[in-house]
Amino acid sequence: MSEPLSKTRLRLWLRLLKTTHGIEAELRRRLRERHGTTLPRFDVLAALARFPDGLRMSELSDLLRVSNGNVTGIVDRLSEDGLAERIAVPGDRRATRARLTEAGRAAFADLAAAHEAWIDELLEGVDADAAEAMTRLLKGAATQGGRAHAQ
Amino acid sequence: MSEPLSKTRLRLWLRLLKTTHGIEAELRRRLRERHGTTLPRFDVLAALARFPDGLRMSELSDLLRVSNGNVTGIVDRLSEDGLAERIAVPGDRRATRARLTEAGRAAFADLAAAHEAWIDELLEGVDADAAEAMTRLLKGAATQGGRAHAQ
Repeated sequence: MSEPLSKTRLRLWLRLLKTTHGIEAELRRRLRERHGTTLPRFDVLAALARFPDGLRMSELSDLLRVSNGNVTGIVDRLSEDGLAERIAVPGDRRATRARLTEAGRAAFADLAAAHEAWIDELLEGVDADAAEAMTRLLKGAATQGGRAHAQ
Repeated sequence: MSEPLSKTRLRLWLRLLKTTHGIEAELRRRLRERHGTTLPRFDVLAALARFPDGLRMSELSDLLRVSNGNVTGIVDRLSEDGLAERIAVPGDRRATRARLTEAGRAAFADLAAAHEAWIDELLEGVDADAAEAMTRLLKGAATQGGRAHAQ
């Protein structure tokens, strides 16, 4: 009566997709409706927040697995909004690094708090033990890939 | 010493994203390199395979959570390749349904077998018990959302 393991894994995969894409869609909706922003922009803010000294466009692009052109466009708009700034890279006249301004750090802190609260709500069916068990299982599961939301 | 539950859930969410996006990226790569196709096209084939009588563009669009224009473009290309066809909807002169041709069903069967084998490999770290436990936990986890790969 037991199904082949490949079928069991396929069902898990379809469920992973459904859950992840469902939550992502809800995050996109809330970021847009409640904060007038987008998931790719949130991802760029989050990356810059992790690197106070700033990141080159190529580093940001690698980190988020998003094209250079896309991250450059997002950083340009963040700069226009006063949330990021570009600084020169010593010894390389053509390169710049992007980093958050103080306003950018404050804006990201607000968004990050909202994001954490939303995830807490969207995963309310998962208690601490289940969350830890799943995190551990997923770590051992698969690929070391990973990719930000921005396309 | 224990962290707030919202942090535990946030770590689970980041891990879900990393795993899901990593596997999706690998599926995209394999579909492109080994089968000259794309994930959105695979999703449309899979949806049509589930409905032998065919689907209207609006149904396909709802099912995959992809814009009408995008699914129409994909169905047009599948039709050019002889894998899908459009049939009239009785009683509605303007509407058509898309369904797979015999060649389309054969092509999808090959792709679906490859896809199942890839997932089996990419989730090789997950045994049957763990896969079932995770599927069950994810079902209870969250949102009823869900979204196909196609954007």
